[in-house]
Amino acid sequence: MFESAELGHSIDKKRYAKIVPTLRADLLDVQYDLKQSGRFPVIILINGIEGAGKGETVNLLNEWMDPRFIETRAFGGLTDEERERPPMWRFWRALPPKGKIGILFGNWYADPITRHALGKIERDELDWHLAEINRFEKMLADEGALIFKFWFHLSKDAQKKRLKSLERDPKTRWRITADDWRAYKNYDAHIEASQHTLRQTSQGHAPWTVVDGSDERYRSVTVGTILLESVRKRLAWEGDTTRRITAAPIVQPIDSSNLLNRLDLTKRIGKARYAKELETWQGRLNLLTRHPKFGARSLIVVFEGNDAAGKGGAIRRITGALDARRYQIVPVAAPSEEERAQPYLWRFWRHLPRLGRIAIFDRSWYGRVLVERVEGYCSEPDWMRAYAEINDFEEQLTAAGAVVVKFWLAISPEEQLRRFKEREDTRFKRFKITEEDWRNRDKWPLYEAAVCHMVDRTSTELAPWTLVEANDKNHARIKILKTLCAALEAAL
Amino acid sequence: MFESAELGHSIDKKRYAKIVPTLRADLLDVQYDLKQSGRFPVIILINGIEGAGKGETVNLLNEWMDPRFIETRAFGGLTDEERERPPMWRFWRALPPKGKIGILFGNWYADPITRHALGKIERDELDWHLAEINRFEKMLADEGALIFKFWFHLSKDAQKKRLKSLERDPKTRWRITADDWRAYKNYDAHIEASQHTLRQTSQGHAPWTVVDGSDERYRSVTVGTILLESVRKRLAWEGDTTRRITAAPIVQPIDSSNLLNRLDLTKRIGKARYAKELETWQGRLNLLTRHPKFGARSLIVVFEGNDAAGKGGAIRRITGALDARRYQIVPVAAPSEEERAQPYLWRFWRHLPRLGRIAIFDRSWYGRVLVERVEGYCSEPDWMRAYAEINDFEEQLTAAGAVVVKFWLAISPEEQLRRFKEREDTRFKRFKITEEDWRNRDKWPLYEAAVCHMVDRTSTELAPWTLVEANDKNHARIKILKTLCAALEAAL
Repeated sequence: MFESAELGHSIDKKRYAKIVPTLRADLLDVQYDLKQSGRFPVIILINGIEGAGKGETVNLLNEWMDPRFIETRAFGGLTDEERERPPMWRFWRALPPKGKIGILFGNWYADPITRHALGKIERDELDWHLAEINRFEKMLADEGALIFKFWFHLSKDAQKKRLKSLERDPKTRWRITADDWRAYKNYDAHIEASQHTLRQTSQGHAPWTVVDGSDERYRSVTVGTILLESVRKRLAWEGDTTRRITAAPIVQPIDSSNLLNRLDLTKRIGKARYAKELETWQGRLNLLTRHPKFGARSLIVVFEGNDAAGKGGAIRRITGALDARRYQIVPVAAPSEEERAQPYLWRFWRHLPRLGRIAIFDRSWYGRVLVERVEGYCSEPDWMRAYAEINDFEEQLTAAGAVVVKFWLAISPEEQLRRFKEREDTRFKRFKITEEDWRNRDKWPLYEAAVCHMVDRTSTELAPWTLVEANDKNHARIKILKTLCAALEAAL
Repeated sequence: MFESAELGHSIDKKRYAKIVPTLRADLLDVQYDLKQSGRFPVIILINGIEGAGKGETVNLLNEWMDPRFIETRAFGGLTDEERERPPMWRFWRALPPKGKIGILFGNWYADPITRHALGKIERDELDWHLAEINRFEKMLADEGALIFKFWFHLSKDAQKKRLKSLERDPKTRWRITADDWRAYKNYDAHIEASQHTLRQTSQGHAPWTVVDGSDERYRSVTVGTILLESVRKRLAWEGDTTRRITAAPIVQPIDSSNLLNRLDLTKRIGKARYAKELETWQGRLNLLTRHPKFGARSLIVVFEGNDAAGKGGAIRRITGALDARRYQIVPVAAPSEEERAQPYLWRFWRHLPRLGRIAIFDRSWYGRVLVERVEGYCSEPDWMRAYAEINDFEEQLTAAGAVVVKFWLAISPEEQLRRFKEREDTRFKRFKITEEDWRNRDKWPLYEAAVCHMVDRTSTELAPWTLVEANDKNHARIKILKTLCAALEAAL
């Protein structure tokens, strides 16, 4: 894998001087076309051997291009705020928006490789991380990102020479620390971990490019040329970027029964029992969120449901049991322009709670496989891949300590009609009913199918769906509170 | 000040039961009108005596209204990321957008009051903080925010009774900690600091309301009613919300000389000297940003200038000396929709660098007093107040360790014309010239006046302007590099 990069590639001064002016002009040109088009982000991952010139080359790229439209990020130790979210959160918030170039040092590869090389994690744990990374990069690519992964390589001898020469020069001496020499001592283990990593994660949509780091001119021209050609090619490509689906299409069950029409919507709770149960379960929920162990967890509650199914009322019965300082409700409307310039999960990533806190999503990332699917706001390949992407996302949440609870509030078409009419007649409910609600109602069967598929594909042992019979609001609210309590009790 | 709040105000159950249903419906109503209009944010500050029911009342407000459009924030210890920015940064990033209600506990009043009550800061330092807060709140109000400041009060006896009763009840015992009793012991000093604070910061646009905290029903209805009436009144107000200016209007100097036309634009540096100096000053800048002491500072560079004055090229000569991992360039274009829902400084607040880092603003908050003034994007009262607001902002930056360096790049109209024509002819510069540039050119005298006023009013000892003669790019770039080095040398 690294053989070709140990050949000692180089470009002489004369050739370099000839190539560079055109390359620079072309790179600038393509960069502005990218900016103008705003069609996709360019994500450049920089990894490799210490001393192989990663920093110098990136600095040079910034010099060649317009640095105003490049965001270079380096990641050191975790901050408090990062420590309390999934490990990927720090990278999620550093992704460049469409039209920009983001260069990420010390990215999602750094930690798994280093930890495996140091013997802190076994091969199977490394592989688990790499599989997660592969799925993440595939999602980015499917969202349109153009991804470059550069590995700057040096042979063991070349690394030693390079470190020594940097150390000799008074101008660069400061750059060499004990860490670098430790890295050198650990060269073989590091190379082994890296080689394995590169093999496991080099894919069509996000391939690795190994660059011989021994000659500055060679490595810079190489990286610059690859960048130029790929961005140019991608900009010229006017066709459909969505992938064809190879999986079997989703079909309806042959009989007419499904998860939703099997629900017993006649379940109800009378007024007196409701008042008593409400107090009991709110009290229990309150105690659970004040449990000392909850300080090391977070709670993420997802509400989806038919229009007028009573999401708002149910949320208020939850928050009624909570301290307002601990929760945040995230009402999900159409994405803003900053959100549209990012992968569709980005607008949820930014609202993830810290430990000890609660986030309640009033509609959620499931919009992708519900409204966006039914209304055709995204293509079939896009919503088809979303199921797996969402499962990954929720797995990362739970791995970072979150308890994820998801509710679908189901009502019958007749009950919905009754509520729509009531809303139109009630003064302070008028805002709750719009033309769109009536239009959505006409698509009832399409939504029903989408909901059944969603539950089938995303109800996991880590983050199961709870279907809530919501024709009777009392029944629905108590079931929701009970479910939340059970989930927290199991977790604490 | 607190006398009336110690009378033991109360509302009996019967009256409460009669008032609340209408109050709730009205509050919901007004909340949706606010949301629909998206005209202004509502900022509610909650302060007061421990045990006076702050948390309970806020929870109740969340229950009465739609909590999806209320953002309740509490602030505990500083996070790493907060510690490396101005103290107000954590509040800046928690402000509600237009159309929403934000409730802030432990807000900007908490720290100054507590520290003064504990004897950690003297009265004059407290007053300095209060003056800063007054200016900040005035800016928010001028930006359209509706600000409520509630002080929940209890007499010393009442606080003691309340703490004891909470402690007796097994359901609430957990809430009382040693901190609360310490607060009680320190009651008198705390009240003195608070009284002084309330007096210094109660103003027409952001008055304090002292609420008797002894009776839950009374305090909740009081807060709810004030909120309702004020938001309703403000929504009904269709008129101009900008204030009339009482200050004397800005006039041009009687003679025709000004800061800009006194510049010697013939200054130039020849090619050979430029190459030598560039290397010298870039080298020095590089060393300075690697100085160990720079780890406790940050560098904020502001670029403004005539169109085609060479900002981009100058920025690249700076970044050419820097490690791409340490700096971020913030190109300032039209604000996004999220940015438009916030005070005009918000979009700069979000890009402030951590310690040890550099942010370069390619155009900046000075747009307010330049393009927005000249093009009439904001009213005269708005840009007139901006000078003082910007000075405050920069003072906070420098107090938090930032070195702030501001450049105005000046060219002559003739030189600008030459460059515009050149840009139209050069392949990879074509993106740099637009219709708008030609239009701006027609307003040269208006911009010239705006620049002179800006420099007069915002060139402070903490963050001075440097006017750069930029007809010759070599001269401009060297002067900029020299200025940056001098500023860093003075600071480190």
